[in-house]
Amino acid sequence: MNYGLIGHTGQMGKAIQEVMTDSRLVYTRDENGRNLIKRPEVIIDFSNRSALSETIKDCREFKCGLVIGTTALTEADFELLHKLAEEVPVVQSYNFSPGINLLKLILRQFSPYMKNWDVEIVEKHHNRKKDAPSGTAIMLQKELGREAKIHSLREGGIPGDHSIIFANDGEVLELSHRAISRKVFAIGAKEAANFVLKKEKGFFSYEEVIL
Amino acid sequence: MNYGLIGHTGQMGKAIQEVMTDSRLVYTRDENGRNLIKRPEVIIDFSNRSALSETIKDCREFKCGLVIGTTALTEADFELLHKLAEEVPVVQSYNFSPGINLLKLILRQFSPYMKNWDVEIVEKHHNRKKDAPSGTAIMLQKELGREAKIHSLREGGIPGDHSIIFANDGEVLELSHRAISRKVFAIGAKEAANFVLKKEKGFFSYEEVIL
Amino acid sequence: MNYGLIGHTGQMGKAIQEVMTDSRLVYTRDENGRNLIKRPEVIIDFSNRSALSETIKDCREFKCGLVIGTTALTEADFELLHKLAEEVPVVQSYNFSPGINLLKLILRQFSPYMKNWDVEIVEKHHNRKKDAPSGTAIMLQKELGREAKIHSLREGGIPGDHSIIFANDGEVLELSHRAISRKVFAIGAKEAANFVLKKEKGFFSYEEVIL
Amino acid sequence: MNYGLIGHTGQMGKAIQEVMTDSRLVYTRDENGRNLIKRPEVIIDFSNRSALSETIKDCREFKCGLVIGTTALTEADFELLHKLAEEVPVVQSYNFSPGINLLKLILRQFSPYMKNWDVEIVEKHHNRKKDAPSGTAIMLQKELGREAKIHSLREGGIPGDHSIIFANDGEVLELSHRAISRKVFAIGAKEAANFVLKKEKGFFSYEEVIL
Repeated sequence: MNYGLIGHTGQMGKAIQEVMTDSRLVYTRDENGRNLIKRPEVIIDFSNRSALSETIKDCREFKCGLVIGTTALTEADFELLHKLAEEVPVVQSYNFSPGINLLKLILRQFSPYMKNWDVEIVEKHHNRKKDAPSGTAIMLQKELGREAKIHSLREGGIPGDHSIIFANDGEVLELSHRAISRKVFAIGAKEAANFVLKKEKGFFSYEEVIL
Repeated sequence: MNYGLIGHTGQMGKAIQEVMTDSRLVYTRDENGRNLIKRPEVIIDFSNRSALSETIKDCREFKCGLVIGTTALTEADFELLHKLAEEVPVVQSYNFSPGINLLKLILRQFSPYMKNWDVEIVEKHHNRKKDAPSGTAIMLQKELGREAKIHSLREGGIPGDHSIIFANDGEVLELSHRAISRKVFAIGAKEAANFVLKKEKGFFSYEEVIL
Repeated sequence: MNYGLIGHTGQMGKAIQEVMTDSRLVYTRDENGRNLIKRPEVIIDFSNRSALSETIKDCREFKCGLVIGTTALTEADFELLHKLAEEVPVVQSYNFSPGINLLKLILRQFSPYMKNWDVEIVEKHHNRKKDAPSGTAIMLQKELGREAKIHSLREGGIPGDHSIIFANDGEVLELSHRAISRKVFAIGAKEAANFVLKKEKGFFSYEEVIL
Repeated sequence: MNYGLIGHTGQMGKAIQEVMTDSRLVYTRDENGRNLIKRPEVIIDFSNRSALSETIKDCREFKCGLVIGTTALTEADFELLHKLAEEVPVVQSYNFSPGINLLKLILRQFSPYMKNWDVEIVEKHHNRKKDAPSGTAIMLQKELGREAKIHSLREGGIPGDHSIIFANDGEVLELSHRAISRKVFAIGAKEAANFVLKKEKGFFSYEEVIL
């Protein structure tokens, strides 16, 4: 695949290039300018929202799909993305980890069968993370459809662990996810890019990519 | 309910009697012989496969249903049980816990989305358990729809832990079940016995009991 | 060994008898009276403090050692026990789990080497437990010699899990203990009884038994 | 420091170069040949045992110390390394992480108190790792002073997990280490290289480096 990458020199940008081994990076853009070798079939943007409007323009120019992992988007940003999705395929998510998205779906479907079990959540992240609980923990809790205490540990360089622990009187069922490295989100971005190639247009969540 | 119990002096046999509080034990059989007070409506057998053929004979004699939790059954054993199920209701499972059965359903539905993840299974049981891997581990592996190495630990008094560990280059998704005590299986056996009373005949898994 | 047991019909009393397989129960005492078959070499008392003064009298009468696991002892109780210890060996502890006591010793000796690691504690207990954090978690935290956040989960029938999680930028070291059943304390009591047989007199903690 | 690196294009080789920021890489050797800019003061070899005899020759030629992290060494390999250590300083370990080395010391000191507990080891690594069990698992097992089954999982991109699981009838004590990234070993190699510079000759373990 010929792809474009916004913010190719950042940490996520580098991680994405590392996993896009069968593909060719034909377009980049960052604060130092744009570099176009060839028309990209899809643009991947995990940079930040200040880059968004330019990215949308690019997608229109190249008539190419978009994989957008930028966080902290506003209502207005979403409107622009939905508008773009009328012309090209757009995959948007705040979390491109395939495992976390599978966990979400498992909880959505199976936690109703464990209504009379107790449930709590434990999440662990590196000690430089400022927010607690993590956005992912909150997202997973929502899928439970009920209250669940979240315990947040902040230690060392842990990239990100999330455990949902169900228990009744006789047994414990624990569903755990652990990020090994930033690479996990790059792998998710790659899968989303492959998904985009098969679509005409439309706005998709990352769940639709993995299902 | 009037019920029969094979191996009533074993640890599982005792645990079953403890939870069958509203019922009457009217028939027992073990290596020291049989003791019949009254015709049982259902026979519960969690002993071992050497007892199976005699148990099947008993069910025919009493025209009663069977809850069979014996592990390490052979193809031939299953044939005999299916034959019996043409006459009376039979509930067979290698694991009568609700959590393990939910785990089975999660794997059945979600492992197809993790086809290109690696997967292995770790199970831990007390050191008196003779078979390895556990029947439950084999059952869970079958739901994966592909090969998966099973690692069996036999230590101390562990009632029964099962973990299915999926990993790709960037993340680990682990689904773990832990039995707190043997009681969880006894409760499951009781529920299966109640289920049997409502059926004419047929071969059922424990999933059908809980869903 | 010939041993005496105070509160032999309670749950702990039954658990102790189950593990004292090579020994003979020759003396019992509870609210229904005393039953003496033969002079005990050691008395085990995990009942409650109202029984203590009578137990101390028994030890003097039989000139036998004492294993005392009763909780919520007062200063005055300790004085009586120390007095008794001038005549016979006495082992006293609020926690007779060998594993928890080993964990304590590991933390005491090795946490100084991890001064610049982060550390937090996670403990899980059944939902009927009223106090949080658990007394054991507080005891373990004290061995760290510094502050450590304790996260308390209260779910289902979990008998008692304690994890001390150390992490630096490149690695995680986790020390975890899990009680399988009440039996763990009975095993500890048995080991303490064996220890008592080898001593002339003196007041001992459970740590001294395992070292 | 001027250092040599065997296998500089491999993943560990790259990680070592990343942390050796104040030092100069003056000698490399791999299957494509050797490249000598200047005499190295120390050679670091984390490649594989087929490279060992050539590495030993290099150390003799350059009269320089050796940091050797190659796993799966044979008795004969150790003999050669001890011979070399009569001339130059050699630091050998199957694992250069501080946490693993603390775990070693904990096991050395405390496993004698758990002689009548069962014990098994579980280790998990990425699916590109060729040897099983890991050198680290073997090293940890040796500290137990008795047989212990080692279970080796090879999945995804797991940098390296090691768990020693002790259990008796009533409890489980689990000591677990998890490498967050390969970097932890590279930092350890750097520390060992600095240690080597201060020594005349002799055979050292990584423990001696950190204590």
